[in-house]
Formats: sequence, C-alpha cells, structure tokens
Amino acid sequence: MRNVCIGVDVGGSSIKIGVFNIGGVLIRKWQIPTKRKNNCDSVIKDIANSIRKQLHRDGIALQDCVGIGMGVPGPVKPDGYVEVCVNMGWRDKYPSKELSEELNNIRVKIGNDANVAALGEVWQGGAKGYDNVIMVTLGTGVGGGVVLGGKIVSGIHGMAGEIGHMHIRDEEQERCNCGGKGCLEQVASATGIAREARRTLECRDTPSILRKYGDKINAKNVLDAAKEGDSIAKEVMGTVSEYIGIALANIALTLDPSAFVIGGGVSKAGEYIRKLIEVEYKHYMPLSKNRAIIVLAKLGNDAGIYGAAKLILD
Amino acid sequence: MRNVCIGVDVGGSSIKIGVFNIGGVLIRKWQIPTKRKNNCDSVIKDIANSIRKQLHRDGIALQDCVGIGMGVPGPVKPDGYVEVCVNMGWRDKYPSKELSEELNNIRVKIGNDANVAALGEVWQGGAKGYDNVIMVTLGTGVGGGVVLGGKIVSGIHGMAGEIGHMHIRDEEQERCNCGGKGCLEQVASATGIAREARRTLECRDTPSILRKYGDKINAKNVLDAAKEGDSIAKEVMGTVSEYIGIALANIALTLDPSAFVIGGGVSKAGEYIRKLIEVEYKHYMPLSKNRAIIVLAKLGNDAGIYGAAKLILD
Repeated sequence: MRNVCIGVDVGGSSIKIGVFNIGGVLIRKWQIPTKRKNNCDSVIKDIANSIRKQLHRDGIALQDCVGIGMGVPGPVKPDGYVEVCVNMGWRDKYPSKELSEELNNIRVKIGNDANVAALGEVWQGGAKGYDNVIMVTLGTGVGGGVVLGGKIVSGIHGMAGEIGHMHIRDEEQERCNCGGKGCLEQVASATGIAREARRTLECRDTPSILRKYGDKINAKNVLDAAKEGDSIAKEVMGTVSEYIGIALANIALTLDPSAFVIGGGVSKAGEYIRKLIEVEYKHYMPLSKNRAIIVLAKLGNDAGIYGAAKLILD
Repeated sequence: MRNVCIGVDVGGSSIKIGVFNIGGVLIRKWQIPTKRKNNCDSVIKDIANSIRKQLHRDGIALQDCVGIGMGVPGPVKPDGYVEVCVNMGWRDKYPSKELSEELNNIRVKIGNDANVAALGEVWQGGAKGYDNVIMVTLGTGVGGGVVLGGKIVSGIHGMAGEIGHMHIRDEEQERCNCGGKGCLEQVASATGIAREARRTLECRDTPSILRKYGDKINAKNVLDAAKEGDSIAKEVMGTVSEYIGIALANIALTLDPSAFVIGGGVSKAGEYIRKLIEVEYKHYMPLSKNRAIIVLAKLGNDAGIYGAAKLILD
C-alpha cells in the first residue's frame, strides 16, 4: 500500500529527513550530518542509504512510498536543475534525478529550501487553510517563499522569494552581502536587529539595559528588552518592524495574498513581534481594508521536511 | 463554426470592443460611449446590444463566438464578483453573469482592466513569448498586472497588481491619493513626473528649457527635454527611473518573472525610458545576473480588448 511519503531538508551542516503518512502526519524524523568532503559529493548517496536503512528498520517497503521531496539551500530551476548551490559546493547538477537513481527510480521532486518551508507552513503549519501565502523567514538572514494556489512559485530562474534583498531603506549607507544598500535583510535579520541596536545606542544618551551587552548584543537581547519596556529596544524594534511592514505591504500590493507567515529565529518573539509588524503593515496599506492576515510559523525547523513531503503529494 | 471571440474593455468614458479570431488576430474593433446615467446601470445592456448588432452586420452568428472576455476598472474577485467599482458607480454586482444573460447565456469571463491589459501584452504584445510577466502602466496613475504561467494573478480580493501604491520613497512628505506617503505613483506617474519637475526647478538655479512651462509643465515636456539633454529634465528622469527600478527589482526579487512590460502614456518615450529604467533595475538587483528583461508595451489602448479576448480562450 502506497501510503507514506518522505521529506528531505538538505542543509550545509545537517540533513533532516521525515517520513509522513499521506494525510500529513509525521511518523518519524531523524537527521544525518552533511559530509562536506569533495563538495558534498556523497550527500545524495548518504541520503539514499539513510532512507533505505530507516525504512527497513520501520518495516516500510520502498514501494510503499509515494515518493520523496527534497529542499536544497539554493536556487532550483523549474526542471530541477541546480546551476550553483554555494552552501553545498554543488554545481551543474540534477540532485533529484540522482536521488531517484539511487532508490530504484522512485519519484523525487526538488525545490529551494525557503520555498519548501513555506509550502510546509501552508500544508500543516501556521498558514494551514490558506492557499495564497508568503512566508518571511527572519533568521541570520531574511528569506522568503511564495505559495500561490497552493503551489510554490519558484520563478523562472528559481530565484523567487529572495525578499531579504528588496531595497526598502533609502538612507542605508552600509553594503549588504548581496552588494546592494538598504536591503530588508540589513535591518530585519537577527544580525540586522543587533546592528540597528548598536547604532541606536551609539547616537542616544538614554539609559538602556542593552548597554551592558556592548558589542556582543544580539537580536534576542533586543527583543527581550523591548518586551520589558526598554525605550531604546522599543525604538529599535519600531524601526525594524516598520521596514518589515513596508516589505509585506509592497508584496501584498503586488500579489494580494491571503496570509503572511512569519518564521525564523526572530519570530520566536511570538505575538509581540507579530503585532508590531501587523501595525506597520496596515499603516503602509491604506488602500483597502481587504488585507492578508499575518500569522506566526508553527513548524520551526521541521517546516522543510513537511514542505518537501508535500512537494511529492502535489 | 466557433471561431471568434470577443474582448470588451469597460472604461469610465468609453467601452472598447474587439472581435478576434481564436488565433489572436483582431478582425474588427469599435467603441461605444459609457452612459453614466444611474450609476452606469445600462452599460451591460448597451454592450450586449452593440455586440449583437455588430456581429449581425458582419454576418457572424452569436453561436460562432466562443465567448466574451471583459475587463473592468476595479477589483474583481476570483468568482467574478464586483463589490465596488468606483469609476462606474457599480456596487455588489456580477457583471459577467449579467452580460451572459443578455446574450443567450454565452460564456463570459471578467477581470480587472489592468490585469487584463497585462494578459493582452503577454498574448499578442510586447511580452509575447513570455509566460511570467509583470506589466507596469505609467499613466495618470501607476497600475500593474501580474501574469504567472500565462494566467492572471488577481489576488484573493482581486487587488493584485496595485503596484502604484508600493511605498518606495521614504523622504516623501506629501500624501498620495491612497492616503499613504512615498508611493511609486507619486513619482512615476505622468502627474508625478510633472510634480517632480516642478520641485526640482524650484530648488535649482540652473537654466532649463522646462522653466518656460511654469506650473503647466507635463510629463511629455520633461521627457522631451531630457531626450534633448536638458540637465534638470535629466535629473528628474533619473529620480523617476530610479524609483521605478527599485519597484521592479523588489517585484523581481519576490516573483523572479521572465519579463516586465512597461506601458501607459509615459512609455511613449520609448527606448529612452526603457533603458533608463533598465539601468536602475539592474543596479538594485546585484544578487544575480539572471534577471527579467524589460520590454515596452506594443498594443497601446488595445491591450485591454486583446487581454479580455484571451481571458475566454484560457
């Protein structure tokens, strides 16, 4: 009976694998380390072997598996082609084809990890029940995924959802990693929040509990202090959420989605940050009261395996 | 033989109608005035009567028509519902259903006029051959349409493509019609270009051929002067195209389309403005060389009837 599917989330340091029933219930998950030797050239074989072993242990035949979905940390063209995957050292590769060949030609689908995570949140996470959803991942960087009509929009070069590099702040003078200036990521990532805090502390005399951290200040310090009412921290989070709000409004004006789902480490600040963003988002969308709702991601680090599994069910 | 289809472009002052063969060739077009009496309540009947008469004159039976597509100047929900159409005074209406009932229950599809125009340019205009296209209309205001996989993305409330109200200029102090500040429309519409010119002339002492127009300056004056090398006009168009470039880059980072198509009155400046925008667009997308191309619209005021006809062929 073909009643399970598998989701694989390939990352630079580890690979997460989940077995799901086709109703979307996670039956088993595990992870293996990413062997980085020779540009990660054993990774696909490692995944295949690990899946084979685990299915055997659980008494599941490979034939009972509808297929495997896989998220990888880089752009994937619509035909599954990966031109470059910097994090893995991969070049000029069809990873899904390779995995399929390793596992008796099982069906394998592939997508970009951020897009796949968005699909996971739409399928079984914070945006469950919504079909047109943009996920914004506020982590070390800022990533995104676009799901329209329940399907990932990966873009013509596999580059859709790169919303961290939207230019949203004219006054920014420092350069972003991408080479631009004023990218969303520069203010809304964990790194960006910490930098914004350092800057604000420098040009204000006000006392702040943040001063004790010095240069080691991080996003969590800022969020915790803001929740406790620290005025500098609140000012910083005001700036951060204003720019996130602008970015969401601009996306909504283009796509008119039903929901935004906010994930990544920064979203652990929960309802506090969701509300901050929502206020700014509404402010920058005066055009209509018909707006997308903003929800928090629910699946955490499992979003990738959920979304990958859903890839193969679609 | 069912070998024609009809496109209707409903506007506040006139209604354009075109008969196409299903290969996309425009066979006949004409227009009728929009009767504004009683909130345009006779418009649907007027369209039906006009189509009936013209088909009769051309010896085409209504049964030979595959169907009718219609673009209207306001948001249309996915099921064809028009909650409010300010320009027409319509409220709480299913215009496509009404038109169908007037014409022997012929198939009728409906969409927002800007989205429909985008579809027209994708089908037979400047973006022919591309499937994932964003149209930007630089006219009195700034509108847009999103076509992905050859289909219009109308959004969950029929509000997709409202890119004129993306916030892109932090320093703007005046309010936009939408209530916001710093909208793309405030700087990139014909009205916006004229205003930007007035502002720039005011705070510069440089001589400029634009000075002779005084307060009556319009976008065409600015574009013509810029093409002739007037330094103030060039500065103004530099600012305008920079903000258009930012908007396109931000959309591209979200959707990674294959092409942008620039339409509306301002696009009559042709290759000159296309290139200006392209330079800025590339500048604000340093992330990858895999970028959408930027093309000029080709169908002018006929884009609406083309796209409307295509609606019914899809």
